[in-house]
Amino acid sequence: MTRFSLSLLAAAALAATSAHADEGMWMPKQLPQIAKALKDGGLALDPAKLNDLTAFPMGAVVSLGGCTASFVSPQGLVVTNHHCAYGSIQYNSKPDRDLLKTGFYAATLADELPAAPGSRILVTVAMKEVTADILNAKTAALTGKARTDAVEATEKQLVAACEADAGHRCNVYPFFGGLQYQLIKQLEIRDVRLVHAPATGVGLFGGDADNWMWPRHTGDYSFYRAYVGPDGKPADFSKDNKPYVPKHHLQVASPVTSPLNDGDFVMVAGYPGRTNRHRLPTEVDFAFGWQQPALAKALGESIALVKAETAGRRDGEIKMASRMQGLQNYYKNLEGQQQSWDGSDILARKQADFAKLKAWVNGDAKRQARYGADLAATESLLAERQGIQRAELLANFMTPSLLTAARQLYLLAQERAKPDAERKSGYQDRDLPRIRASQQSLDRRYDEPTDKRLAAHFLAQYLAQPANTLNPAWVDVFSLKAGQDEASIRAQIDKVYAASKLSDTATRMSWLDKDVAAFKASDDALIKAAVALYDDDRRLENRDKELAGKLQKAYAGVQQALIDYHASRGETAYPDANNTLRISFGKVQGRTPGADGSNWTPFTTVDGIVAKHKGPDEAGGEFNAPAEQLAAIKARNFGIYRVKSLNSVPVNFLSTLDTTGGNSGSPVLNKKSELVGLLFDGTLDAVISDWDFNPKMVRSICLDSRYMLWQMSTVDKTTRILQEMDVK
Amino acid sequence: MTRFSLSLLAAAALAATSAHADEGMWMPKQLPQIAKALKDGGLALDPAKLNDLTAFPMGAVVSLGGCTASFVSPQGLVVTNHHCAYGSIQYNSKPDRDLLKTGFYAATLADELPAAPGSRILVTVAMKEVTADILNAKTAALTGKARTDAVEATEKQLVAACEADAGHRCNVYPFFGGLQYQLIKQLEIRDVRLVHAPATGVGLFGGDADNWMWPRHTGDYSFYRAYVGPDGKPADFSKDNKPYVPKHHLQVASPVTSPLNDGDFVMVAGYPGRTNRHRLPTEVDFAFGWQQPALAKALGESIALVKAETAGRRDGEIKMASRMQGLQNYYKNLEGQQQSWDGSDILARKQADFAKLKAWVNGDAKRQARYGADLAATESLLAERQGIQRAELLANFMTPSLLTAARQLYLLAQERAKPDAERKSGYQDRDLPRIRASQQSLDRRYDEPTDKRLAAHFLAQYLAQPANTLNPAWVDVFSLKAGQDEASIRAQIDKVYAASKLSDTATRMSWLDKDVAAFKASDDALIKAAVALYDDDRRLENRDKELAGKLQKAYAGVQQALIDYHASRGETAYPDANNTLRISFGKVQGRTPGADGSNWTPFTTVDGIVAKHKGPDEAGGEFNAPAEQLAAIKARNFGIYRVKSLNSVPVNFLSTLDTTGGNSGSPVLNKKSELVGLLFDGTLDAVISDWDFNPKMVRSICLDSRYMLWQMSTVDKTTRILQEMDVK
Repeated sequence: MTRFSLSLLAAAALAATSAHADEGMWMPKQLPQIAKALKDGGLALDPAKLNDLTAFPMGAVVSLGGCTASFVSPQGLVVTNHHCAYGSIQYNSKPDRDLLKTGFYAATLADELPAAPGSRILVTVAMKEVTADILNAKTAALTGKARTDAVEATEKQLVAACEADAGHRCNVYPFFGGLQYQLIKQLEIRDVRLVHAPATGVGLFGGDADNWMWPRHTGDYSFYRAYVGPDGKPADFSKDNKPYVPKHHLQVASPVTSPLNDGDFVMVAGYPGRTNRHRLPTEVDFAFGWQQPALAKALGESIALVKAETAGRRDGEIKMASRMQGLQNYYKNLEGQQQSWDGSDILARKQADFAKLKAWVNGDAKRQARYGADLAATESLLAERQGIQRAELLANFMTPSLLTAARQLYLLAQERAKPDAERKSGYQDRDLPRIRASQQSLDRRYDEPTDKRLAAHFLAQYLAQPANTLNPAWVDVFSLKAGQDEASIRAQIDKVYAASKLSDTATRMSWLDKDVAAFKASDDALIKAAVALYDDDRRLENRDKELAGKLQKAYAGVQQALIDYHASRGETAYPDANNTLRISFGKVQGRTPGADGSNWTPFTTVDGIVAKHKGPDEAGGEFNAPAEQLAAIKARNFGIYRVKSLNSVPVNFLSTLDTTGGNSGSPVLNKKSELVGLLFDGTLDAVISDWDFNPKMVRSICLDSRYMLWQMSTVDKTTRILQEMDVK
Repeated sequence: MTRFSLSLLAAAALAATSAHADEGMWMPKQLPQIAKALKDGGLALDPAKLNDLTAFPMGAVVSLGGCTASFVSPQGLVVTNHHCAYGSIQYNSKPDRDLLKTGFYAATLADELPAAPGSRILVTVAMKEVTADILNAKTAALTGKARTDAVEATEKQLVAACEADAGHRCNVYPFFGGLQYQLIKQLEIRDVRLVHAPATGVGLFGGDADNWMWPRHTGDYSFYRAYVGPDGKPADFSKDNKPYVPKHHLQVASPVTSPLNDGDFVMVAGYPGRTNRHRLPTEVDFAFGWQQPALAKALGESIALVKAETAGRRDGEIKMASRMQGLQNYYKNLEGQQQSWDGSDILARKQADFAKLKAWVNGDAKRQARYGADLAATESLLAERQGIQRAELLANFMTPSLLTAARQLYLLAQERAKPDAERKSGYQDRDLPRIRASQQSLDRRYDEPTDKRLAAHFLAQYLAQPANTLNPAWVDVFSLKAGQDEASIRAQIDKVYAASKLSDTATRMSWLDKDVAAFKASDDALIKAAVALYDDDRRLENRDKELAGKLQKAYAGVQQALIDYHASRGETAYPDANNTLRISFGKVQGRTPGADGSNWTPFTTVDGIVAKHKGPDEAGGEFNAPAEQLAAIKARNFGIYRVKSLNSVPVNFLSTLDTTGGNSGSPVLNKKSELVGLLFDGTLDAVISDWDFNPKMVRSICLDSRYMLWQMSTVDKTTRILQEMDVK
């Protein structure tokens, strides 16, 4: 399942070019450039309209932070994936009212439930190019840490000015690896409520077994509503709040007058997280030759350790459930990528393409003067960064969760001593609610025995490396030694934990307000460790800033060379995904070959649910369709949702849409810009498309809106919201 | 998985006609009649040759009792499915030598291991029509029990005469529901040894998850060897025994000179267990309208109870493992059948066909005179039998295993008092080894808490029925009462078990040699129960014999009418499967549609193994390919086994072959009668083909012999047996 954004691999985004009709996650402002392709595909709308974020249909598309959603009524009703609303459904569930199991339907507005704390609906209202501000003459003359600091300072100024408009959240995003910058302004709706979710047997039908698989039969939809204060402005939850009236909303396509068929044009608007198309060959080689396999190994070990430590302890299992889901999903994704990589010619092609770029640069004195130095510098700087990444990959795995929390708390105390504008990005007043929520929610992902076991296991791996490659600060903080074995490391960790009260939430939260002196005076073992690591953490931060500043300069040059090279060949470049609003287009299409031994047809139907249904006791209960649904299918109670060629109701469909994690919940629109589905997944054998787009392989899996409407009208009888959506 | 024969539904077999090219499980003697279809299909051999059981290729095909196998070397090497040899692999496994996990390869003849006790290789050497003997003038004049007794008496005489030839096992099989009888003589090889089995990660790759599924990637093959005494005759295991020299053996097809392709002719020879094609509408209606759903309900409850009772008790789980496998497999099969049945027009078609038959009979005075009475009688007799089946369906579920054992022991004591020739079939001297093995092996399927729980649960269901429908003998034997609740039934059962020593194997075995007087004098509670039930058991037996005698006469008449009716339309009839040697033919072919959302292509490849591989910890370890195999696949180390169009090694293929349970392990032959595969499964969405053949849906799943040879030569390096099979 394309679950939220996978952005653990922090690195600059790179340009990619559209070599194929269906490749590309386009920025709204680029759409006029590809207008012809959209028209040829069948789009009825003027493509130029897609550039206006405040017009239809883009004004109806929103971000949930990690997922995408869209308004589907004039009263702020929002549809997204079931897996995107999962946390809110879980948050409202109690042992005697298991909403995950039974589903939820608010019969009236008053019955709508607050979403999980921290839930936001973000409506992008403006995107402004700010490259000239960020890379102004003064900054452009700088290099290293000074350049990084100057970029950050300008970003903070731009954000602060933008956020002077209350109720908005602003951020600066780099595009094309720091060649361009956009300031994005979003209306931040803070009162989000759960309106409707189908039972898990519908919304998560197939569970992990079907995750990233086709044929698929998942009813991955749920409904939120955006609420604002009586003044129409974003507000915290209050009984007095009222539904938000969006400027635009999407109309669900009628199964009668707008039936979706094989081969039909579709487009998707959403917030894809991160892609790495056309990275430099050295980066690709490093990612697949070392970094991702090393990550997968550590993730696999983590999964096994969490399982072993929580076996038979239901409380531990529940605490680690969300993190386990993340670990397993990421692990499966990396394994899928590596499987496609093995035996492929991807590296050879990347190398050949890069050689062509170099030849193009070197073939002309002007071009050589313009790009030559950046090309050379980038490769050497990347090698430097790879050295650091090799040495520090285990850091994330070996650091106890409470130490990470302690470091954040101490850094906050240090930063709070400064005026707000001078503080580090991420530690300003605007960031406090997020920091507070993060410290609070540690409870939900912290299980002491598991945390200790993981830390000891990976510290032993770290300390087994050559002594001269180790960071003395990390070794000393727990009084460890190079080569130390896991059992004795564990004994040290036990001691540290015993001498700390940070696992107590109230205690931990109380540190949010303490000053530096209080930290320095503390005898809490983990607070002491955070204080002890502070200077070295800043040393590493400065080292990274120095490198980042050099790399931004050189990398942007390479990006410019790539864009110019492709432009010389008549190709339009789109930037790699970076969690900002993008549009992809393509068509409904199966795949030949599909999996080994089968070809994929574009639609599945409710009859496949009956065939897969196994009940609550088999296959971990992952194929457990509700009895009422099964009865409706057996009775062929399909009404207008029956598709004649399928003799059934379509459930999911395949499309050639180019998407990635973060696109989950994105509205899929037909040529009339009507909602025909929700994007929710890719296929495991094509997740490598984040690095290497192969149009023969890439298919996005979408929920067919006809299935959603059939289930809602025939089985769940959610009359109120169907009427609100003007479904006839 | 088409695991062995499913013959729990004991009922007379019925005729079916070949409406489609690929429908039909033909008796060898029928093949000259369908010679043209075989020639058109591409068979290079003279079809008449297939009628000679002692000639090539039929002489190479053998039965394992519930599975099929074939000789593949001049030294008695036999290939069959991994799941057919599973018991022998398990039998030879020890905690420190887990052959299931690692696989097994005997490097020399001396390393070959005895198969599980009771293993037999049966070579059919003769089939003789004995209808005139069985239904001789004297018998033909009888009806009811007298007729049944007369048929049995003649059967016993024929068998005894046939078995005078030492080393042979003979049986009389009814065909066309008792219209015809064949005496089948088989060489019974008793020294069977395990030669080679791949690791479970190959032989059972996909486990239960993939059972009855496509796409499939299971290396379902293993090797036995037949051994005989120094005189060349069947003998018990002895170090002095030597490999059996079969008259004929199959040659594995060369991947170079005889590559198997999509659309190629294939045929399969084997021992299908039971089909129910063209049963009377009333039987079909009863089976799907009541009997199979009721059975499925009881099986489902049994599965849940066994799980609950053995949870956390590994010894209990192991004891019940084999029975659970059987329960779950049968349950899945019935559920699959019912799913195809729901909403289908099968009954309406059966009724329309039967109406046509009746119209044909009634349209002519001679025909009416010949068949009319039998047609009328059959329907009324079937209704009578259905009443009994309804009343007694729970009997199998509610009877404690030890009571069943006690009844068998007491019946044996009663029968042993008579001269051998006069004893009941099944209780003659020739049957003693089988009875002994059955009593001994009870240990492997008996777990006391589970046995008690099952008995109490189903007895409560039985006693909840109207009091006047209950058999007083069954109620009284444990001093129960109509309407009694489970808890108090359980208390009674506990008392009975406490007062019996039959769970002790030595004690139980000692009863094999005791006489009737000893039984009558015993104060063992279960022996007393068996003695108490004896007279009523005989009453029921006689009732059944009376009905069977009437039904045999009438049913045979209906069968003759069906054959004649179809012959009048130029159609050739084949008898329903009855565990005797049959031949099916068809072609390699995928399926459109396959599953919902996909079309099936005819071949899977080793690349699909890599895609499905999950390792030992995920999905119950069912997708855990050996590391050496994965490495060989990743290295594209395919040699002559690579198929160009697939760019890989084929693993399994689909064919239109008409098969059923019992066909497992059957050799699949190409038009040159070379071994191209082993049949091992059908698909769940077509298991209803046992009742209603649908050529669009029915596909048999076969192991591709190229995968077997590749795995053996490249990964497992079983050089000795590859040379013996003359694989180049």
